[in-house]
Amino acid sequence: MDITASMVKELREKTGVGMMDCKEALKECGGEIAQAVDYLRKKGIATAQKRGGRATSEGQVQSYIHGGGKIGVLVEINSETDFSAKTDDFSEFVKNITMHIAAANPICVDRESIPEDILEKEKEIYATQARESGKPEKIIDKIVEGKMKKFYTEAALLDQPFVKNPDLTIQDLINEMMAKTGENIIIRRFTRYMLGDSDE
Amino acid sequence: MDITASMVKELREKTGVGMMDCKEALKECGGEIAQAVDYLRKKGIATAQKRGGRATSEGQVQSYIHGGGKIGVLVEINSETDFSAKTDDFSEFVKNITMHIAAANPICVDRESIPEDILEKEKEIYATQARESGKPEKIIDKIVEGKMKKFYTEAALLDQPFVKNPDLTIQDLINEMMAKTGENIIIRRFTRYMLGDSDE
Repeated sequence: MDITASMVKELREKTGVGMMDCKEALKECGGEIAQAVDYLRKKGIATAQKRGGRATSEGQVQSYIHGGGKIGVLVEINSETDFSAKTDDFSEFVKNITMHIAAANPICVDRESIPEDILEKEKEIYATQARESGKPEKIIDKIVEGKMKKFYTEAALLDQPFVKNPDLTIQDLINEMMAKTGENIIIRRFTRYMLGDSDE
Repeated sequence: MDITASMVKELREKTGVGMMDCKEALKECGGEIAQAVDYLRKKGIATAQKRGGRATSEGQVQSYIHGGGKIGVLVEINSETDFSAKTDDFSEFVKNITMHIAAANPICVDRESIPEDILEKEKEIYATQARESGKPEKIIDKIVEGKMKKFYTEAALLDQPFVKNPDLTIQDLINEMMAKTGENIIIRRFTRYMLGDSDE
């Protein structure tokens, strides 16, 4: 089938990917826009993942203040080049992440960074709950495992469903940005303050 | 001498203090506005310090982003009442502190919070420098003490000279806000990110 200029334009707008790649993707996918988006996403992510070892020292430090000063978020998100970091797409992405953190209150960026003592305490609570509700001992571990999976989606930013579109996780949003930029993208660190809630 | 309404008005605008206190201050100071400001400031600080034990759980969480996303600061500053926290004076004060932190890069809020290992390292460096420049052993301690005083004004936010007016320390700015509001004011915590400078 013929790949028209308007199809290429639509795909470019959806993905931010260059014209030649869009043309190729549409050819591969028989002109189906949705399939071509997936194709480019996978290809883009594959490229970015290959670059996983490359330095990500550019990006943006941004903030978001909620409720006129009740909640504040500071975040650093890295890309490989200053060029990508300065695009409107990247700024919009960073803004979405800061607003998400204000609303969803994650403990840390990824599940590997959750402190061991918090994990142990959670596991103990779930095990005790299961025992007290009379579950047989041999399935306690399975129950705890299931509960912990849910806990990760509440505690780890990358595992959280995006508040503005719960069908996507924050990791999905990052994957999209990696596909768009062809660069490795990392949420390096964040801090969230709630007024009167300091841990001192 | 007569204390006119316009004198009281001028003093109120300068200090934010109530009418009756302004009248009294002007009487005590023979109608001299500048002296009356000092009088109220001292009195105000005294009042606020008496309240030192009172809970400060109101205030503002605010942020400042410098250089389009190169440096970011998040700060929590507490007052006793939401009323004080919402005034323009307080917002201006908070803004000044966040911008100061971005520029002056303090290690922590007060000198008591500087980690012991950093202090030890500093002391060692100063002692070594003094010895290597041939200073006699008996005055090394004195030299180190002097250098540490300077280090505190570089490392501890409250001891730092305010970047917009180095005649005042940050503690002086806080004292002014305590005088204006008659409330205890505390810089609770801050975080400063510089792009690409994470400690991970």
